[in-house]
Amino acid sequence: MDEIFKPSRRTFLRGSAAIAAGTVAGQAAAQGTPDPKITELQDWASYTGVGVDETPYGLPIRFESDVIRRNVEWLTASPISSINFTPIHALDGTITPQGCAFERHHSGAIELSKDDYRLMINGLVDRPLVFTYADLERLPRENHVYFCECAANTGMEWAGAQLNGAQFTHGMIHNMEYTGVPLRTLLREAGLDAAGDLADKWVYVEGADASSNGRSIPMEKALDDVLVAFKANGEALRMEHGYPVRLVVPGWEGNMWVKWLRRVQVTDMAVGSREETSKYTDVYENGIARKWTWVMDAKSVITSPSPQMPITHGQGPLVISGLAWSGHGQITRVDVSKDGGITWETARLGKQGDTKALTRFYLDTDWDGSPMLLQSRAIDETGYVQPTKDQLREKRGENAVYHNNCIQTWFVNEEGVAENVEVS
Amino acid sequence: MDEIFKPSRRTFLRGSAAIAAGTVAGQAAAQGTPDPKITELQDWASYTGVGVDETPYGLPIRFESDVIRRNVEWLTASPISSINFTPIHALDGTITPQGCAFERHHSGAIELSKDDYRLMINGLVDRPLVFTYADLERLPRENHVYFCECAANTGMEWAGAQLNGAQFTHGMIHNMEYTGVPLRTLLREAGLDAAGDLADKWVYVEGADASSNGRSIPMEKALDDVLVAFKANGEALRMEHGYPVRLVVPGWEGNMWVKWLRRVQVTDMAVGSREETSKYTDVYENGIARKWTWVMDAKSVITSPSPQMPITHGQGPLVISGLAWSGHGQITRVDVSKDGGITWETARLGKQGDTKALTRFYLDTDWDGSPMLLQSRAIDETGYVQPTKDQLREKRGENAVYHNNCIQTWFVNEEGVAENVEVS
Repeated sequence: MDEIFKPSRRTFLRGSAAIAAGTVAGQAAAQGTPDPKITELQDWASYTGVGVDETPYGLPIRFESDVIRRNVEWLTASPISSINFTPIHALDGTITPQGCAFERHHSGAIELSKDDYRLMINGLVDRPLVFTYADLERLPRENHVYFCECAANTGMEWAGAQLNGAQFTHGMIHNMEYTGVPLRTLLREAGLDAAGDLADKWVYVEGADASSNGRSIPMEKALDDVLVAFKANGEALRMEHGYPVRLVVPGWEGNMWVKWLRRVQVTDMAVGSREETSKYTDVYENGIARKWTWVMDAKSVITSPSPQMPITHGQGPLVISGLAWSGHGQITRVDVSKDGGITWETARLGKQGDTKALTRFYLDTDWDGSPMLLQSRAIDETGYVQPTKDQLREKRGENAVYHNNCIQTWFVNEEGVAENVEVS
Repeated sequence: MDEIFKPSRRTFLRGSAAIAAGTVAGQAAAQGTPDPKITELQDWASYTGVGVDETPYGLPIRFESDVIRRNVEWLTASPISSINFTPIHALDGTITPQGCAFERHHSGAIELSKDDYRLMINGLVDRPLVFTYADLERLPRENHVYFCECAANTGMEWAGAQLNGAQFTHGMIHNMEYTGVPLRTLLREAGLDAAGDLADKWVYVEGADASSNGRSIPMEKALDDVLVAFKANGEALRMEHGYPVRLVVPGWEGNMWVKWLRRVQVTDMAVGSREETSKYTDVYENGIARKWTWVMDAKSVITSPSPQMPITHGQGPLVISGLAWSGHGQITRVDVSKDGGITWETARLGKQGDTKALTRFYLDTDWDGSPMLLQSRAIDETGYVQPTKDQLREKRGENAVYHNNCIQTWFVNEEGVAENVEVS
């Protein structure tokens, strides 16, 4: 076996040509002594491990026990009508595992079996219908990866930098591969085509839970890409994500993605339900509310480094990583700034994003140990550019809670510790 | 509220124009009586459910407790050197959740922390290097969805139809979104470029577990798309999938995707390790073995209906669903036969497949209640057509275990019960 060297800063520098962003000089750098983790026989190479029959359904290894959904105590009046947050700071790639994908309940997650499940299509249709779960499985289905973002994501940040972590400022989002039947298929089964001018029509959708969480959706969207979904990331929806059936409303606020979907009523006007009047509307400074703010505009956040993910390895090569998304379609570009928005570098996209799905971006860079004001700025296929917080406030004031898609700033100090701040 | 009808065969037929494949006439069909699941207030709409703080990391709902990895008792001499199977019959879409993705261990799954993790690059390189986990996180990373298939998948079927379920005949496969550093980046860090003619070179890769499971990989592949991966479906690899780091060798047999990766040695010849000589070689009838059967050729299987997924709803609309994949690139077409390969219909692809990743296909059809001999046949971007079992046997005899990518046949009887059979 060859003599073993620890990587030193000098050797990494020599080899750096092939690496776009620079060189690695990790924690093992510049030490001359042998590393017993390499030179000695390790315990785990000396015994047999866990067998294949011991984990019929697996969970994360115990070392990852902090990669979990979390709520914010002062935000949570009652856990059954509240939210928790995806640990986006600790994830990479684009898919969110169901096990740690954020959940929002209006009256708690209910346990509803496939046998007990019914979906009614009624209202202005020729043939009101009731579908069982087995009925849904007999209709042509589709697969799509979509993000689901709560309208209140980043909502605590309107008045100033409050929550110190990407999980809490931006974690009301997840991104999964859904399998389901297009809603238009069910509406047409019920004879919608004969129901008159569709341009004036709406659907009112509600869930089987006590809150029912009813929302109105214009017919144009209902007939476009809305899915009646029964799988996420290949397997059945989890109880907390609406088992056995939820609505998927691509690009639109998460509140409309009704869980435990029980009814779709065709109407000739919006219902004006509680969840679209007293809640989920955006109030301007003058008390007037914006109506129908359904689409989630382009947005992004740097997930690492971030307050929960400090730089621990000192100067040198650094991967800045984050997520971008737009309810209007694909993300076409993400820029990253290290100086609070004065200068920008174009980030590398992990892969071309699906439409209305999370896109991972990276900036492979070198950190000289200077403080940074890290920002990311997403641009979508419509040309829309993610705004600053000041730009948003100028339009909407500071009364708002929902639809805060502003550029986020993390201050990173010389020690690599990151903090949620604002820049003007 | 409108009067509520159960869907009847007649009303579904009238509404069928909008549905490509026909009409739904589910278990609730043609009954005239009200359904109390719709007309009565249900329990789950009367109480509050589970709160957001009760599932920091979620598991499937109890109703899905049979959607788990399973092994086959007579195949499993010792669970620490054996295999279990993904419940592909019960999944849809393309992503496999880590929790139910098949695992194969040669000496059991080991528990190795990020702090204890080291990766050595040695052999014919200018600068042997040791990387810590933190070092790997500082290098430019990529995201790709790839399938991982055990060479022995379907291996019990060479001599005849044996295992009665898609989970057991084809479940040694999973498909995940990996995040990792290209192996070529690490090799170039170690100064590979100066090491002479790369065309003659190999890498020998091994794991930190007791088996070490060493395999030789030609340099051309090592420099192409091989990843040193640390995330799958966004989160850390599970212990049983190689936490914290595994090799991803796209399109090639799963045995080469070394888990708990500890060493990559550059050599000028293949090592001829146990796992590439006495195991994982294909023996012809005459005793001669095929050498280096790395790539997984195009293959497909119908996951529903299948022995574990009978048709329970009788005649009428039926979604035939399955998976197709090729180690040579994209799947371009999948055909489905109901008569044992005499006539074929082209299936609908769930979405255009990623390269070297699972592709979901559907045939939206009507079942008249006649017995069927269901088959699927995958075609990949090279034009390769998945062969019949007889065609494979003609070339390779019946001594083989590995690389059985033959067309699978399910016999479906008048009751909708499916069975693993062969046709000639």
